[in-house]
Amino acid sequence: MPITFARRMQHTRPSDIREILVKTSGGDYISFAGGVPDPELFPVERLSELAQKVLREHPARALQYGPTPGLLPLREKIVALMAKIGVATDSDHVQIVTGAQQGIGLSGTIFLDPGDVVIVERPTYSAAINAFDLFRPTYLDVESDDEGPDIEQVRQILHGEQPVKLAYVIPNFQNPSGRLWSAARRQAFLEAFAGTETLIVEDDPYGQLAFKGEPPQPIKASDQDERVVYLGSFSKVLCPGLRVGWIVASSEIMAQYNLAKQNHDLHTSAFDQELINAYLEEEDLSAQIERLRSSYAARCQAMLTALGNEFPAGTRFTRPEGGLFTWVELPGGINARKILALAMREKVSFIPGEGFYATQPCPSTMRLNFSAMGPEKIEQGIAILGRIVRNLLDQSNRQV
Amino acid sequence: MPITFARRMQHTRPSDIREILVKTSGGDYISFAGGVPDPELFPVERLSELAQKVLREHPARALQYGPTPGLLPLREKIVALMAKIGVATDSDHVQIVTGAQQGIGLSGTIFLDPGDVVIVERPTYSAAINAFDLFRPTYLDVESDDEGPDIEQVRQILHGEQPVKLAYVIPNFQNPSGRLWSAARRQAFLEAFAGTETLIVEDDPYGQLAFKGEPPQPIKASDQDERVVYLGSFSKVLCPGLRVGWIVASSEIMAQYNLAKQNHDLHTSAFDQELINAYLEEEDLSAQIERLRSSYAARCQAMLTALGNEFPAGTRFTRPEGGLFTWVELPGGINARKILALAMREKVSFIPGEGFYATQPCPSTMRLNFSAMGPEKIEQGIAILGRIVRNLLDQSNRQV
Repeated sequence: MPITFARRMQHTRPSDIREILVKTSGGDYISFAGGVPDPELFPVERLSELAQKVLREHPARALQYGPTPGLLPLREKIVALMAKIGVATDSDHVQIVTGAQQGIGLSGTIFLDPGDVVIVERPTYSAAINAFDLFRPTYLDVESDDEGPDIEQVRQILHGEQPVKLAYVIPNFQNPSGRLWSAARRQAFLEAFAGTETLIVEDDPYGQLAFKGEPPQPIKASDQDERVVYLGSFSKVLCPGLRVGWIVASSEIMAQYNLAKQNHDLHTSAFDQELINAYLEEEDLSAQIERLRSSYAARCQAMLTALGNEFPAGTRFTRPEGGLFTWVELPGGINARKILALAMREKVSFIPGEGFYATQPCPSTMRLNFSAMGPEKIEQGIAILGRIVRNLLDQSNRQV
Repeated sequence: MPITFARRMQHTRPSDIREILVKTSGGDYISFAGGVPDPELFPVERLSELAQKVLREHPARALQYGPTPGLLPLREKIVALMAKIGVATDSDHVQIVTGAQQGIGLSGTIFLDPGDVVIVERPTYSAAINAFDLFRPTYLDVESDDEGPDIEQVRQILHGEQPVKLAYVIPNFQNPSGRLWSAARRQAFLEAFAGTETLIVEDDPYGQLAFKGEPPQPIKASDQDERVVYLGSFSKVLCPGLRVGWIVASSEIMAQYNLAKQNHDLHTSAFDQELINAYLEEEDLSAQIERLRSSYAARCQAMLTALGNEFPAGTRFTRPEGGLFTWVELPGGINARKILALAMREKVSFIPGEGFYATQPCPSTMRLNFSAMGPEKIEQGIAILGRIVRNLLDQSNRQV
């Protein structure tokens, strides 16, 4: 029987990342492909004890249907977490979602009609592009340097001919680039929107993973116009398998998120919410985050050193001060897919950068994750990648 | 700042049910409003032990990102559950979702363009209407009797002027009516689609809750054309707070569900999937279902007897042989919202039937849930409702 799918399905594509992840998830792989925390650092013992506690103390609440906005005590704790990064809100303005990824999809649901203009960074998070693609927007992407996006370009787009519906940005240790916007650039970015009706969706799964000092304040902290929707997540600071994230937004916007969430899956797992709530109640999340920060900082350093040693001259890579990723731009226009094909024969993987561009993909870029394994394996894997890149560069130089 | 939401948001509405549930969820209410299992019957102890086991044996798998289609061992167990009700499939054709509700939303995502025609029953599950509304279809609803939908009407619609994209049906102990389609009607229904390109989305959360005998075979069991998408759920046989359901569909359709699911929330909670997988491995789900069946059968009987005793002559109500609900049609055109307003003053609640119609709502109908409390409370609550209905009927008769 011939089947006609909705038109929106022609505008979406499978995630490169998840396909490469599936292929290279075996224990014998050195994988720089994931965006994944190190499972060795999950607080497994405590979660096991807390699962018992939750089922002993609140069995009905943990296993029964729950409210669409999410478990109230958890939303209250999220309000406290938000206060620590300078965002004043209350539990009525928090919607629990099934990972911040769902926050992106619901943002598309409530805001985007086909053809609506969306500003994104260049590069940007590939799964956000994939999620927005279902709503068939037009993307305008903005060049960035080490401080953040090109503000002049943002202004031109915002005051151009087409109205702009929203900007989707990741100011803290961006996936894929690891880039941190400077405070001045954040300020200038937000100011550029004054007088427009353009929303900002600020995705912040990595802000807590600053290697040094306090987590950076999100743009949402300076939002006077209720223009910014903030997306947060426990995936990178606790564990992603529980799939719990949150949205912070104004009342008017929150009412639409509630509605879309209710219609989509009623609510996020009650048990997972209880478990995270109990963890926040009994444990010091900052101590857990501190463990992650120091571990990831060492791994990042190992990767940057190895990249400097093993990759050919002319290679550019970001020097992240937090998060999970560094971003490599290769010399000589080498195609990262070629590297991946060769690397997988030697059981090393990573994600080619192409999928992280909303328009005009740059094929000679790579996203490397440094959080999932120790320094020794990182060095080993980068040595293999470096050799492959040098060989390809030699070949291409000889051909020239 | 003025905000423009996507056009689709004008076509959706908050769920009556969830609003009434929130208002009447206090312990002092006799609530016939929920579609909820009795939390007293949740296997809390076992789930607590299994949570420990899962975190001991598969900590990384339970807490890390997982594959979009879902945990393979769980999908394999679902294949076995499907075989028991006559559906031959394999794990590649199973997609785990965050409750069957998400299966409905994803069906809208992959199939529905604005204006597409959707056949639904009259009445039908209100949250399915709400989920489909986001995709702005045109509904054509089909009258039903105690055996199932009017096949002649289905044929006329299918062979009418407008092409029909899909039919959404709940053949087993339907929410809200409690109706079970006869075997003959199922056969005739499926045959009516022969030669058309119309899909059937079969939602089956209640099939296992037959009070007597084997669970009825879904339409999917007779599907020769890969026309039927089947939605299943653990919410009603185990517990809804874990939010785990599944989709069974052909390869071509499944590829699109995978894509939509990936873009929407990457995957369903890994921990919840592990927990249910462990439960199915170590426990006898049929024994748990047997406990639910016998308990709900007694409660249903108590409700039917009370309705017969307490409600005025001329009241019609279904006599469910499974599931969670009975459906009441009131005499004299009494508006169920009036009854609800009065009942809430006496701490009794239920859901007025209006929200369960895709078109032309009938206001003198009520959905009553019988699964959430014991027979005594049921009798008490129905006595209060019966008195209110009789009073309203008397008033309206006097006015005439």
